Amino acid sequence: MRDPVIELTKQLIQRKSISPTDQGCQQLIIDRLTPLGFTFEPMQFGETLNLWAYHGNPDEPTLVFAGHTDVVPAGNENSWVYPPFEPTIDEHGMLYGRGAADMKGGLAAMVCAAENFVKQNPNHKGRVAFLITADEEAAATDGTVKVVEALMARKERVDYCIVGEPSSSKLCGDQIKNGRRGSLTANLVVHGVQGHVAYPHLADNPVHRFAPALAELVATEWDQGNQYFPATTMQVANINGGTGAENVVPGELSVQFNFRYSSELTDDVIRQRVTALLDKYQLRYSLSWRLSGKPFLTPQGTLTDVTAEAIKKFTSLTTELSTSGGTSDGRFIALMGCQIIELGPLNATIHKVNECVSCADLKTLVNIYQRILNNILNRGQVS
Amino acid sequence: MRDPVIELTKQLIQRKSISPTDQGCQQLIIDRLTPLGFTFEPMQFGETLNLWAYHGNPDEPTLVFAGHTDVVPAGNENSWVYPPFEPTIDEHGMLYGRGAADMKGGLAAMVCAAENFVKQNPNHKGRVAFLITADEEAAATDGTVKVVEALMARKERVDYCIVGEPSSSKLCGDQIKNGRRGSLTANLVVHGVQGHVAYPHLADNPVHRFAPALAELVATEWDQGNQYFPATTMQVANINGGTGAENVVPGELSVQFNFRYSSELTDDVIRQRVTALLDKYQLRYSLSWRLSGKPFLTPQGTLTDVTAEAIKKFTSLTTELSTSGGTSDGRFIALMGCQIIELGPLNATIHKVNECVSCADLKTLVNIYQRILNNILNRGQVS
Ligand SMILES: [Zn+2]
Ligand SMILES: [Zn+2]
Repeated sequence: MRDPVIELTKQLIQRKSISPTDQGCQQLIIDRLTPLGFTFEPMQFGETLNLWAYHGNPDEPTLVFAGHTDVVPAGNENSWVYPPFEPTIDEHGMLYGRGAADMKGGLAAMVCAAENFVKQNPNHKGRVAFLITADEEAAATDGTVKVVEALMARKERVDYCIVGEPSSSKLCGDQIKNGRRGSLTANLVVHGVQGHVAYPHLADNPVHRFAPALAELVATEWDQGNQYFPATTMQVANINGGTGAENVVPGELSVQFNFRYSSELTDDVIRQRVTALLDKYQLRYSLSWRLSGKPFLTPQGTLTDVTAEAIKKFTSLTTELSTSGGTSDGRFIALMGCQIIELGPLNATIHKVNECVSCADLKTLVNIYQRILNNILNRGQVS
Repeated sequence: MRDPVIELTKQLIQRKSISPTDQGCQQLIIDRLTPLGFTFEPMQFGETLNLWAYHGNPDEPTLVFAGHTDVVPAGNENSWVYPPFEPTIDEHGMLYGRGAADMKGGLAAMVCAAENFVKQNPNHKGRVAFLITADEEAAATDGTVKVVEALMARKERVDYCIVGEPSSSKLCGDQIKNGRRGSLTANLVVHGVQGHVAYPHLADNPVHRFAPALAELVATEWDQGNQYFPATTMQVANINGGTGAENVVPGELSVQFNFRYSSELTDDVIRQRVTALLDKYQLRYSLSWRLSGKPFLTPQGTLTDVTAEAIKKFTSLTTELSTSGGTSDGRFIALMGCQIIELGPLNATIHKVNECVSCADLKTLVNIYQRILNNILNRGQVS
């Protein structure tokens, strides 16, 4: 099966680019796009390799393909049917390997789509670009966020962005992400007074103090979501109190909880509501917050319409717009004010052993990406 | 200040008998009681030294002085005003050292009281005995509990017992313990389904499941206590859930909580009520229990009356009967069906740095113990 997108995916999987390393993946893409006349700008921040590359006129409407070359560790390699860094296609046409779905397959499909497009339209209108990082799965501090800062500082034009993350649920193309919820984490410490369980009147148990507040916190409806976003959810990720001894009343209780929130809320509103709730129970507490990303959204419009049409053409599926799931580097690129979606293969096996992607799906994705490029850049469907 | 009880307390403190070791303390007591004609029976269980000693007729009413020679560690010795194992008396007549109050002072006072009593009444009625262990502060598995088993197996007679633990609160003799609450610990694991915080519908957060149950658990009134016991208390000692990662819904929540319960309840009733409460919230959970001691009580009677009279005589205080505080080896001795109280110096500094005891209080305790012995054994006030 010597199809270009399969070959490129396999070459990428062979490079053991555990986050945040690249292991030559970006060079492979540079080698591939060089004959087409792309301009390359490697952007290293700290130890992290990033790549900005483009073909066409920087002053015209620009569509960016965004992705990452890094992968999560393979875990226990003995649990894999095939070695995770030796790409293998089984009898059902599934290509196995770490990163097959997240997201070396999507990355290869975007490269092949751009390749086909530029070969067929060497003098196309607009610009096709790549924003590639090797730090998406790890800290993500020297990756897309820094590239975006640099691009924005020099007013680089970006109108559309397709992130090749595995967005599909059951069938390739059944779902695209047109936004993501915000992610906000609260680190709460409830203060009490340590003591002996036999003398509770001399102690002040922070677990007891916090119990009714916790019950209200988990029972709270934060919003009902909206047309694009599911309802905001809160999950307690960690709770720890106690010395380990069974006869000591803990002096402190630590609770970490995370909000995935819709565009109905802002992080400020969440902070205020949590603080009001805690204050109602007259707790003594310390509270700090970490905002991982605000919610962002590309409402239905040119990019979603063109994408839906291309998906329909090659899969017969009516794709669904979704904002569910975790965060992605889309949150950084969205700051550039572009229309942005995520479209890629099935996400069922990502971050798991025996990660795999359908070879047929990758070929379909090449067609879909190429048609989007064509319809956006050549037909002048700029909104 | 060459008073016998002070000298003996100092000699005991010099022996660094960190629990469960004895370091020659029991030998010191043997040497002291040998000239008086006591019979000694060292009882070693495992590594633990215990001592059973008595003077008088084993078939007659027997009053046992009970205590322990082991002490808790000194902690940071640099935080002590005086070295913890170099007994030192300050200008206020306070004797400092680890174990001064818990309970080498009380132990020395009991030995001196018995010494005085036997010297003055070599042919006394009844029997005076000592039950001494070196494993009270640690696991307490090879200490009093084993001695009591051995004594009960051979039907050793015990009618009265005074445990020399520091029972006093503000003034020496202001409080005696005539019982102790039961102690029962629950080890609960609430089962959920681990997952990603972004996909809470695929997970089942045990913290969220447990939150309303916890709120009810801490708000529950278990009983109102009774004439002798304060109300039963429940304290959460440890609560732990979460992987440490802020984006993972924990799969399990562990909660350890301890009951100090009055004679209004039994451990069976507590188990049933907790189980019913948890079941009401339809939790999936595992629950195990550890019963440290059932509640025991010596109602007002001969021993409490004689003790109160002796305290009144030497301190002018009207002592208070109390069952508050932690557990003690009294729970084991109580199984012998004797009247049992705890009476000793102030407990303000026990288990802390700069543990100390008043020299004047120790001399008062010798007088009180001796008067109790005299009134119980010689005057034939057997109930
Ligand atoms: Zn990814
Ligand atoms: Zn003690």
